[in-house]
Amino acid sequence: MLPVDLPSTVRDALLAPLVDHHCHGVRRDDLSRARFELLINEGGSPAPPGTTHFDTPFGAAVRRWCAPVLDLEPHAPPAVYLSRREELGAAEVNRRLLAGAGVVAFLVDTAPGAEDMEVLTATEMGRHGGAAADELVRIEQIERDVAETAQLAVDYLDALGEELAARAARAVGLKTVIGALCGLDFDPARPSRGSVIAAANRRLSDPKRPLTDEVMLRHLLWSAVDVARERGLPVQFHTGFGGSGLDLHRTDPGRLGEFAGMLQPLGVPLILLHCYPYHRQAAYLAGVYPHVYVDVGLTLPHTAAASARVVDELLELAPFHKQLFGSGCHSVAETGYLGALSFRRALGASLASRLASGEWSPADAARVAHMIGSGNARRVYRL
Amino acid sequence: MLPVDLPSTVRDALLAPLVDHHCHGVRRDDLSRARFELLINEGGSPAPPGTTHFDTPFGAAVRRWCAPVLDLEPHAPPAVYLSRREELGAAEVNRRLLAGAGVVAFLVDTAPGAEDMEVLTATEMGRHGGAAADELVRIEQIERDVAETAQLAVDYLDALGEELAARAARAVGLKTVIGALCGLDFDPARPSRGSVIAAANRRLSDPKRPLTDEVMLRHLLWSAVDVARERGLPVQFHTGFGGSGLDLHRTDPGRLGEFAGMLQPLGVPLILLHCYPYHRQAAYLAGVYPHVYVDVGLTLPHTAAASARVVDELLELAPFHKQLFGSGCHSVAETGYLGALSFRRALGASLASRLASGEWSPADAARVAHMIGSGNARRVYRL
Amino acid sequence: MLPVDLPSTVRDALLAPLVDHHCHGVRRDDLSRARFELLINEGGSPAPPGTTHFDTPFGAAVRRWCAPVLDLEPHAPPAVYLSRREELGAAEVNRRLLAGAGVVAFLVDTAPGAEDMEVLTATEMGRHGGAAADELVRIEQIERDVAETAQLAVDYLDALGEELAARAARAVGLKTVIGALCGLDFDPARPSRGSVIAAANRRLSDPKRPLTDEVMLRHLLWSAVDVARERGLPVQFHTGFGGSGLDLHRTDPGRLGEFAGMLQPLGVPLILLHCYPYHRQAAYLAGVYPHVYVDVGLTLPHTAAASARVVDELLELAPFHKQLFGSGCHSVAETGYLGALSFRRALGASLASRLASGEWSPADAARVAHMIGSGNARRVYRL
Repeated sequence: MLPVDLPSTVRDALLAPLVDHHCHGVRRDDLSRARFELLINEGGSPAPPGTTHFDTPFGAAVRRWCAPVLDLEPHAPPAVYLSRREELGAAEVNRRLLAGAGVVAFLVDTAPGAEDMEVLTATEMGRHGGAAADELVRIEQIERDVAETAQLAVDYLDALGEELAARAARAVGLKTVIGALCGLDFDPARPSRGSVIAAANRRLSDPKRPLTDEVMLRHLLWSAVDVARERGLPVQFHTGFGGSGLDLHRTDPGRLGEFAGMLQPLGVPLILLHCYPYHRQAAYLAGVYPHVYVDVGLTLPHTAAASARVVDELLELAPFHKQLFGSGCHSVAETGYLGALSFRRALGASLASRLASGEWSPADAARVAHMIGSGNARRVYRL
Repeated sequence: MLPVDLPSTVRDALLAPLVDHHCHGVRRDDLSRARFELLINEGGSPAPPGTTHFDTPFGAAVRRWCAPVLDLEPHAPPAVYLSRREELGAAEVNRRLLAGAGVVAFLVDTAPGAEDMEVLTATEMGRHGGAAADELVRIEQIERDVAETAQLAVDYLDALGEELAARAARAVGLKTVIGALCGLDFDPARPSRGSVIAAANRRLSDPKRPLTDEVMLRHLLWSAVDVARERGLPVQFHTGFGGSGLDLHRTDPGRLGEFAGMLQPLGVPLILLHCYPYHRQAAYLAGVYPHVYVDVGLTLPHTAAASARVVDELLELAPFHKQLFGSGCHSVAETGYLGALSFRRALGASLASRLASGEWSPADAARVAHMIGSGNARRVYRL
Repeated sequence: MLPVDLPSTVRDALLAPLVDHHCHGVRRDDLSRARFELLINEGGSPAPPGTTHFDTPFGAAVRRWCAPVLDLEPHAPPAVYLSRREELGAAEVNRRLLAGAGVVAFLVDTAPGAEDMEVLTATEMGRHGGAAADELVRIEQIERDVAETAQLAVDYLDALGEELAARAARAVGLKTVIGALCGLDFDPARPSRGSVIAAANRRLSDPKRPLTDEVMLRHLLWSAVDVARERGLPVQFHTGFGGSGLDLHRTDPGRLGEFAGMLQPLGVPLILLHCYPYHRQAAYLAGVYPHVYVDVGLTLPHTAAASARVVDELLELAPFHKQLFGSGCHSVAETGYLGALSFRRALGASLASRLASGEWSPADAARVAHMIGSGNARRVYRL
């Protein structure tokens, strides 16, 4: 799995248990082919007639790397893979893939929460994966819960602050998807009280819709920053590809530069997730701001065979103490397994190349592998 | 030409005839050195005194790969190459290079059309290349033809719709260069009838200028979408580098995200051409939208020796059933020859790497080579 | 240091003395660890508790490549490196590193000028490095000097033009950091006289602050263009990463497209510095505009072990006669040494790859190495 010529200390460091600092619960139910195909595509539409979402880097990696975990030959055809998946049952598949990821702790974004019975809870993710599990609180999910019950703007705003604080008390970090809802090109300033009350009234007139109002999203974010500051928690930002109908450039994490500058005096860690194809921009922010961290997250399983270049591009500029491993795992346990595998293979290739050219020493390579794989996450999330 | 260690099935798939789904007619006349230099540069200005446009990746590739097609040694000096080109005559050079590309069908953007006698027609491109040839209709060219003859806005708009429909009846696809004229950051909504009539009146007051009015360009585009939907044709978009005085980021295909979302329910394939340096953004759109397709087009001959990385970056995320081969060939037949050569070499390198690391099976590698080289184009264009 | 299989002519061309067309004076004083760490980070903040700015690509390269220049083993620990640095003294360290860079001429941005006694002058940079030295005039520094002494707007504007002309008379080029001050998305047109006078009055009401007013910055830039045109000097633009609190995308050199178009008829060379992560965009501009040049500057020492890919990405599209070597050296002489080393190693790797695949001839490889290393700079700056 790893380059053959790595020193054993480096190999050991790469194979050591990882902290997966950002993932979601995966589906607990058996999945039809149509459902599985929908879940492995970030767009959520079926592939055109005559084609399949297995004909993607992710699909090829599932057939190559996950098939053997299910006792199949590498490169098993999609139908064979899905038939075997059904035969084993979702629980056994999830156990094999999550445990096979070699993760010691999952930090789990639990939105949409208990109402979605089809998705494993954080505790279950840990149990299936033989790992610890902690919770990340998705702030927009809290807002939705509050909006559905509040009647008056002032109550809504009070409840928002209280619920954020209450949920944060049981979590290791907060997470926002503001980039997917209104773009990362939002006005970074804390919104005025007057504008927030007006936005709250607008919100309560239609509380069922996903929140896309920039003023209310900024208020929610700054409220989360207050809570994070008080409790010493980091705030994760979904950035880059995945999960948005907005034009992609509006999710460029480089657009968080001014906001990052405002956060710096507060000492709240700001963590950039996924980032692709703007991971070089994210690496730059992680280099200039002491409180900014970065992963390539879901890019790992989705670029799969080509993830080595993406990981190496992050290594171009990002400090080694600012990079984190996250699989971005969601929907199917294959994402978590391939995320960990791609990470180890990609980082292994980068380290092998630096060792072969004499750029780094084996001791430094092993140390950096440990930092990115788990050490940095333990420090930032105080695990 | 291809990596030496490829299995023969993969090699055969790479060497199989290609469908060049986007090219232009090349010049039929003999070219002076000054003219040739202008034609191989996307900017259209002479190189600074003491320098030459041959000192580019494209120029180096012409000397390396096209020289032997003209019976010269590899790396022939520019003067020797151009002298031999003249000696053979443009017709023979075009025949050798276009036939040497190994293309079974050319889809030809025929703008600016019959008036430019110096450029081969679609039929002639096919005859020189020993291939079939079909037409792509450039919608802004149709608009220009109509604008020059119409007197009244209402007649102009009627004629536009009629001419689009008439021309589309003989074509395999439509093409727009709206990105080069007003940027891809246009308002994606269909413009109102009132705003279109106002824009038509403005247009008729100065019909000789290139159309840059955003409202009229959007009307033209949506009219083309209507025709495409009716006839089951795809719409190609020029994106990324080449052919524009606009700031480059305004040609980022990622800016078509909202427009792509609007097109999805209509089932009209949207094809992103060239894309560089935003091909990762394009790959993402091709992954999330079932009707979006992508090529790197003219990037192939222009990045030449470095095209392997560009092609491999597209393979990071783009589904294999969504990638197309196009040379973007224009002006000189060298672009078509080098486009096909760079494509085969680049894709060959990507496949060889995946096979060597065991990521893909030889059967999958051969299948993907076939899909991108011709199969996808046959499906999308119904060839 | 270079790939082992390079022909000797190519090796010689890579090892030949370089023209470093853009650098700054380095610190002349002995540096504490805290100070050194601050100076090697582009953000200017200490690393978080328990971490170090040595855990970066730059820090690893200092330990690998600069340590032996100070008689230490490669990969020396940071404390050992800094202790040896102090033992030798800043003057000896600067001499060893600057001379070791193998540079024949430094072009030095002398801002903030004589007032900063801690920084080597251009003359001293040359003396320490055993090289010639010439001056680049930072136009925003001139503005600051003038603003602090002028009383009336009209005097201020007159003095600005006079001082620009006077300083340019002793320089080989002008340089602007407008991208870091108001973004490269400024209105490219020359501002009206009326708007400039209004801006001058605003400026004189608070002359101590850094200038961020877009109108005045544009006036300053266009005044510099006038002077550059008269004297045949190029104008350098800081672009991309480094030195700005603005959102990164606003420093994308691709945003200079329209401005570049306006400059073209004037014949003033426009030189894009650093550019990362937008170097592909810069390469495109250098390809289409005959007066646009490009380097990756400070990216070389900062991406260090990974600089080969960055240099190779510039080679994808940028004409060979349009690329320049610059180290972006500042603060510590390590940047200058690593800039030159990374350049030679990176370009060497690109050339070795093209030679191994038969894409280029050895003669062309040697010629291109010479052009980028020094020839192009001699031509553009008339050295």
